[in-house]
Formats: sequence, C-alpha cells, structure tokens
Amino acid sequence: MTTQAPPLLPPGVSAGDFAAALDELAAACSVLTSEEELAGFRDPFQFSAWEEYAASAVVMPETVEQVQEIVRIANRYRIPLWTHGQGKNNGYGGPAPRVDGSVVVSLRNMNKVLEIDPECAYAVVEPGVRWFDLYEAIRAGNHRLMVSVTDLGWGSVVGNFLENGATYLPVAQDMNAYCGMEVVLANGEVMRTGMGAMPNNSSWHVYKRSLGPTLDQLFMQSNFGIVTKLGVWLTPWPECYMPLWLRVWKDDDLGPVVDTLRQLMLDRTIENVPQIWNTISMASVISSRAPWYQGEDPIPDDVIDHMARELEIGRWLMRFALYGDEAVVDHRFAKIKEAFERIPGAEVWGAKHAPEDMDSLEHPFDLVQAGVPNLEINQMTGWYGGEEGGHIGFSPVAKLTGKDATACRDLIRGLVQNEARLDYAAVLIPTNARSFIHVTMVIFDTKNETETKRAYDTAKLLVREAAKHGYGEYRAHLDFMDLAAEQYSFNDHAYMRFVETIKDAVDPNGIFAPGKQGIWPRAMRETRGG
Amino acid sequence: MTTQAPPLLPPGVSAGDFAAALDELAAACSVLTSEEELAGFRDPFQFSAWEEYAASAVVMPETVEQVQEIVRIANRYRIPLWTHGQGKNNGYGGPAPRVDGSVVVSLRNMNKVLEIDPECAYAVVEPGVRWFDLYEAIRAGNHRLMVSVTDLGWGSVVGNFLENGATYLPVAQDMNAYCGMEVVLANGEVMRTGMGAMPNNSSWHVYKRSLGPTLDQLFMQSNFGIVTKLGVWLTPWPECYMPLWLRVWKDDDLGPVVDTLRQLMLDRTIENVPQIWNTISMASVISSRAPWYQGEDPIPDDVIDHMARELEIGRWLMRFALYGDEAVVDHRFAKIKEAFERIPGAEVWGAKHAPEDMDSLEHPFDLVQAGVPNLEINQMTGWYGGEEGGHIGFSPVAKLTGKDATACRDLIRGLVQNEARLDYAAVLIPTNARSFIHVTMVIFDTKNETETKRAYDTAKLLVREAAKHGYGEYRAHLDFMDLAAEQYSFNDHAYMRFVETIKDAVDPNGIFAPGKQGIWPRAMRETRGG
Repeated sequence: MTTQAPPLLPPGVSAGDFAAALDELAAACSVLTSEEELAGFRDPFQFSAWEEYAASAVVMPETVEQVQEIVRIANRYRIPLWTHGQGKNNGYGGPAPRVDGSVVVSLRNMNKVLEIDPECAYAVVEPGVRWFDLYEAIRAGNHRLMVSVTDLGWGSVVGNFLENGATYLPVAQDMNAYCGMEVVLANGEVMRTGMGAMPNNSSWHVYKRSLGPTLDQLFMQSNFGIVTKLGVWLTPWPECYMPLWLRVWKDDDLGPVVDTLRQLMLDRTIENVPQIWNTISMASVISSRAPWYQGEDPIPDDVIDHMARELEIGRWLMRFALYGDEAVVDHRFAKIKEAFERIPGAEVWGAKHAPEDMDSLEHPFDLVQAGVPNLEINQMTGWYGGEEGGHIGFSPVAKLTGKDATACRDLIRGLVQNEARLDYAAVLIPTNARSFIHVTMVIFDTKNETETKRAYDTAKLLVREAAKHGYGEYRAHLDFMDLAAEQYSFNDHAYMRFVETIKDAVDPNGIFAPGKQGIWPRAMRETRGG
Repeated sequence: MTTQAPPLLPPGVSAGDFAAALDELAAACSVLTSEEELAGFRDPFQFSAWEEYAASAVVMPETVEQVQEIVRIANRYRIPLWTHGQGKNNGYGGPAPRVDGSVVVSLRNMNKVLEIDPECAYAVVEPGVRWFDLYEAIRAGNHRLMVSVTDLGWGSVVGNFLENGATYLPVAQDMNAYCGMEVVLANGEVMRTGMGAMPNNSSWHVYKRSLGPTLDQLFMQSNFGIVTKLGVWLTPWPECYMPLWLRVWKDDDLGPVVDTLRQLMLDRTIENVPQIWNTISMASVISSRAPWYQGEDPIPDDVIDHMARELEIGRWLMRFALYGDEAVVDHRFAKIKEAFERIPGAEVWGAKHAPEDMDSLEHPFDLVQAGVPNLEINQMTGWYGGEEGGHIGFSPVAKLTGKDATACRDLIRGLVQNEARLDYAAVLIPTNARSFIHVTMVIFDTKNETETKRAYDTAKLLVREAAKHGYGEYRAHLDFMDLAAEQYSFNDHAYMRFVETIKDAVDPNGIFAPGKQGIWPRAMRETRGG
C-alpha cells in the first residue's frame, strides 16, 4: 500500500510524512516518482549534471475535484506545489519547480475544450489544452473562427496567458484575449472571477470586470491559485488575410521603422502584434552559424551585412499582417508601404489570402499570424551547431519609440557581445501601440557546461544592467526570478511587499509555487533572511 | 487649538479621539466640518430628510504626502476614510460614504495634469482632474490628441476608471484606456504598479502588466488604497471623424440591431463603444413627460410610438462613430448602412468631419464621441417634471446577442412597469463586441419622499430579480452595494471571501471605505454577523 518515497524531499517535510502524502495523492490521481519519469520535468536547457530545480514527484489530475484534493493534501503536509499546463516554458525554465523537492502539478491531462461559442466568438478551455488542440476543436466544429496563437503550438493556452505570453492577432494586443477564470484556491475551494462569481451568469466569458475588484490579472505571473478554466476570445474569419513583410538594410533603420510603426499602430492601421527580427535571430531560424563565421568572437558587422544580403533577410525584418474587408486591406497596404518605404531601401510586401486558404500557407510566420499552430521556428536554438541547442530568454520592456528601441539595442548588444562574447539575437514584439518587449535569445549548447554556465551568467548580468537604465523584464527565467523581481524596487520594494502581504493571506501555508516570480511565502522569506 | 468636534462620529471612535484626530488632520491639510460644507458631500438624489450616508468631516489634501499623512492618522485613530476624485457619481450615491461618520477624502484639489506624452499618446493625471481639465490641457498644449470622455464632463477621470465607468472612443473598449497607477496603501506607503515599480522605468504608462501579478484592476471598485496618479491613453486625431445614428421603429427591432452590431464590432468595422437608447430615455434628454402623457401609470406602448415618431427618435436610437482614414470611413459607412438597413424601416446616417472641427459640433453626442466634454444630457432627470429630478442607475451586464438583449429588456421593463409603475428608460452600452451593460434609469423627484423611496426600493428589487436570471450589476449604488455583491454567490460567496481575505491583509484596521462594493473589513463583518 505504501509508495516508495524518492530520495528528494520537499523542504521541512519528513520522509514519513512525504510517503504518507504520496499515498494520499496516489489515491486522488496519477502520481509519477521514478527518476526516468521526473527527468521530463526539468529545465530542458539546464546542463544535465546540475541538480537544481528538481521535483520530488509529479501529480497529474484529470478533474477540478482532483486538483482540490491535491491542494488539501499539500496543505495538510505543507508540501510546495509547482503547477504547469503543458510545461513548454522553454527559455524560461520549462516545467521545473523553483524549490527542490516540490511536487509538480501537471495539468496535461486536463485537456478538454469545454465550449466554443460561435456567436460571441470565444472558447472555454482547461489548462492542459494546447494551441494545437484548440485549433483542432475549432476546425472540427467547422467554425469560421481564428484563435490567436503563439509561435510554437505545443504549449498550453492557459499557461501562456498566465505568463503574460504574447500572441499575434488583433484581439491579443496587450495579451487581452482572455475573459473569465475558474481557480482552485489554497483553501481547496473553487472560485470563479468576474461575472462567473454569479451562479448561472452567461456573461462570464464576455465581460471582463467584476462587481468589485477584478482578480484575473492577479493570477497571472503569480502563485495564488491553480487556474482550472479560462475563457479565450476568438476572431471571426476576415474577408481577407494579408501577412506582410518589411525589410530594411541598415542597422540604424530600426529607429525610423519603430517610429513609423508606432504611428501606424496608434491609428489602428496595423492592428495585430508584429515582430521585428534582427539578422542573427532570423538567420538562426533558417540557417546556422558555421557557414557564415567560424570565429569564437561575436559575428562582426560586415559578416552580418553579408548574411543580411545573402539570406535576403535584411538587418531588420518585420512580420505583421492585415485582416479585414479587402477594400480596407488594400487601402492599408498602400498606406503602410508608402510610410515605411520613405526609409531608403526599405521594402514592404505580402500577398492576400482567402480565409479558406490560411491553413495551407507555407511560411510558419504566415501560419502563426493566421492562427494556425506549428513548430517550425523551434530549430533556432541550433545556431551554434552544438549537440543540442538551448536558449534563455531575456525580455525587457521599453517604450515603442525609435529612440528607446535604439538605446535598448545598443545597451543589450553591448552587453551580449562584450561581456558574454555571444551574437546579439533579438526580436522586438510590440504588444501594443506604445511599448515593445525586447526578446533577446541567449543561445548556447546545452551539452557544453562552460557555455551553458556563461549563458545563465550573461542573462543575469543583462537583468541587472538593463534595470540600471530603467528597462525591466516582462517575464523572468526560473533561475533569476528573484533577481528580476528585485529590480522592481521603487519605495523599498513596495510592490513586492504588497504582493507578499496578499500571498501570506491567501496561501498561509505557502504551498503554491514558492519563489515564482520572486514571490516567497512568509516561512521561506524568513529562512532566506528577506 | 482644538477643533470643534461635529455631532456625528465614526463608529467606535470617542469624541475625544475624534477631536484629536481632526486636530492632526487639520495640521496636515484643509478640513471641512460645518453642516453647510458637509451638505455638499451627501448623495445628491437622496431625500433630504434621510440621514444615512453622512460624513463627519471632509479632508482635502493637495499632495501625495498629505494623503499619506491622512492615512497614517486614520490608522492611529481607526477612522474610516471614504475617497472620491470629484464625487460626481450621480445615480450611484454621489460622494457620500457608506458608513455614517466616515471622513471623506476629497481629492478635488489634487487636480494637476502631470504629463502629456504626444509621442506615445498618453497623459498622467492626479485624481481630482476632471474630463474638462484634461481636455483643456491637451488643447492648451496644441496636441493633436483626443481623450475618450464620459457623457458628463464634470467628473474625475481617475474616479471614472476606478468605478469601471464607460467612455466611448475605440481606445476605451473594455474600459481599457488606463495604464499604470500610483497608490497610497493602508500602511501610508506609496506603491507604483506595473513597470512603475522599477525606479526610472519609462514604460510605466505604456505597458500594462507587471513582472509578477498585475494589480491595477485590484484597485478598481474596491477599498484597498487611494490612487494618486493614473496613466490615461489618448488617441491621435484621425483623418476623418464620422458620428453616426441608427434609428429603428419597432421595439422588437432591438434583437436584429444587436445581432448586426455584434458582427460589426467583432470584425472591427465599428471600433468605438456605442449607446443604444430606447424612446423614453432619449425623450428624457430632449423633452419631458407632461406633453406626452399625464397618467400615473407607465406610458402605454401607443404613446411611446407616437413620441418615437414626433420626436423622430424611433423606438431605439443608436449613437456610434467611425474614426480613421476617409477611405476606410467611407467603406465602413456603406457596409454598416447596408447591414442595418436590412431591418425594415431602419435608417443609418451621419456626416464626416475634419478633426479641427470636432469641438464646434452641435449635438452633445457628437461632442462626447469626439472626446469633447460637456454637460448637455444632464437634464434627463427632469423627465417627471418634479421639483428636482434624480435618478438611480441599475446596470446589469448581458451577452451582446439579440436574444439576451430582448430577454433583458423584457425582464427589466416588466419589473419597472409592473412593480414600480415607472416608465422604462434604458440605454444599452456595448463596452466590447461580446457584452453590453443595460443601464436602466430609475427616475424620480428628489423632493417627493414617497417617489424617492419607491425608486430606491425598485432598484433593489431589480438587483434581486435580474440576478435570478443570471444578470449581474457592473456597478452598484451606495444604497444597495451589499445586495448587489451578495448576488455573486457562486460556491458560498467564494469571490467575496477571497476579496475579504485580501482586504483584511492589506488594510488590517479597515480604514479604507468600509462597505464599498460590499467589501467590509473584519471588525465590521463581525458586527454585521457576516
């Protein structure tokens, strides 16, 4: 009747208690404890011999009631739980827990699309539903609806929303394509947010606020509950879909590109969420480093120019798209082309498609911007040609102005090239008309310990140095969540102290994801001297 | 040296302590205590002899430091504070506090527009800034920017955002035209949200999320802090502005109007926040009741038809607007006209304007939708021709479908006409493409005690009955905040219990606005047996 306790224990939990807890958990749902099974729940890019961020067990509930039971057991035994939807959080630590010995709550088996409302254009999903699953459910229902997806379709829809992840359709500016949550709280009870707090209220997934404070964003990037349902807004098929490219040939064209883009987004000519790739980042998707440069130092500027020409990707390549009536798309395309092509050498091009053809497009970017999930760009981490490519995301936010984009580029490129001796791979993501996320890919070979260590150290240096200039991360890697959070220090960390006050109140035993985003429960803050 | 203590005291505070507190408050900022001064801080529509919701004093800080000092004093003496920006919360209780004897914190003197950023199109305002003030500041700076305003320009910009109030430009769908707050917390400390939590971060008012949980909506419709600064997103002038009207002649045209509107909003042909007025509500703006009907019973349907024709306002009249390049506006107008005019008898019309002409338009609706604040529609409460018109807002949320709009109309009209014997005055406000707020104006003569009492009772009946059908209020009047909140009872009031847990943690002495939106601090819940 007893389950063999694994060697790793949650902090402060005796082997006997942990064994008893595992027994209770196993009575509630499927539990994984073998070394082979747990290996799949580590940071996929961490050097394999490193031992941090390891789970003691993984539980895989299939129902909300099972999640409630897991939470009640964890409360009784004071066991830290680390939750993921799919755990595809690559570049930010994957499914791995912050605290060694945590029990990972994997929601992969809670994977039902619960509802698709074609009239008001939304879906309700469980947290294990992947972008692929939601897309397939929409297709299977023959709904003429699009879902705004991430660049890689294997991740959890709910997980991405809870991490403030970007997607790219107009509905998803400001990461706003969610509406209405169900959450299992630390007391094991189920709460519904917004209009869902009223029994039989049909507006749960169409109206975003509550009577009283609106709580949904409190459960994003935090550790206050386990989200078990989420409303996701969809978009009716447009008459016409036109994915577009903008290419410029000089590195300093970035400034005018960004200033022009801001104006075109502020007046809603461009309504979706674009991406602006530099030469290295785009080359890493379609090529590898060796054919272009063999030096151990960062690729010199003239080689980048050569790559830009040969690969026809320019120094900056922007992907974006228009959606709507063909007459409006035509007008906007002409306006956009005229605006950007005032920049010498700049080119804007693209082709119009009927919605029926969206899923048969060839380029992965055309698919992503049409809401068709795929995995094509995942090869970018093979850039350095090591045995197994990994990357760490460093992603600060800045104002969407040419001045800030250029300053941000100069600062981060300088640090990446001079301090880390790595190539500067960047993708700028304007999640609204006024700001962008500067995603820097720190790319390395996960089989090379020195290189991996250097990459992690580089990312931490970037966090500190960028903050000195007022640029803060939108999302932090597991390994430097504390460091990233510490940069938000206004008035002696008033924000974090307020968040900790909420944490202690709503999760008094500190069972939910201790350390997530730098938020620690009281007992662990005291241990850490915080 | 001692201030004369007024007769009314905060609950549980001795006269001596209150006098001492007033001394300390008077040393910090301007304090009002005379009966004449306090009269201006009551519910303006309450019958004058009723004694509920009265303040013991009003403090008028001019700086953040003064707000901090007020909070510290209130904490020492356990004095409830009730905050407003301008206090123009008519229809929902005005500036009056929920708990008798509260000290009202009036932020009317914190009225500076702190910043206008023409590049990224936002402003930063203090909580006493009115729509008029922000508009004037934009004009004074010669910025070609619009601000999304309320129907009445005298209110506080911050106050409206904190109550989830609607405004009408595209930027304001989902009440989303805010970005980044500064808040004085119950411990007297200043916190900044989002990127503002990082010192010298220039993205505070352009990027909406935090690293970690995003707190801004936690401070809306709640009592967790005093907001002292808010970022407000503005909109660059469009090439063309076209305010539009849709008029239909049959009451049941509401269904097809709403279904057509939803499709035109989902595909972003209509991007702003429309309003759909029924005959009575529109007549109350441009006429009064007496010329049409003298009976004490609700106006019969044939008389409404007569008014609809004579006043040329139809049975339903929708105001909405297009903004953008003239070519796009022309395309959209033709599309909209074609779509709505499939409804027999429906008419769509409007005229295009250059942005330079927006502030000289005649109709108040054309001004509001151009972001030009005014007070024109304030006369609607004179409908019954009493000495002094008042109204109570009853405002549930529903799905933006013809079926829900019709069901909501039938339910509420039935209650208003049959139970309250009042005319059914309604304005539907679709704050996004998927939902609308059904604003019902319960209109009465504030000098007539019986009529006033009946109006308050009617509103409470509406709250209860609508909730039985799954329609919940988006915002509640002071007099029935508890009742409205109680309807959100899913899982034994899990939402409110979670909110109360936060309340007790972040405001342990319960000094901030006890009872606001039904949220009571622990001590007062115990008194009330909750």
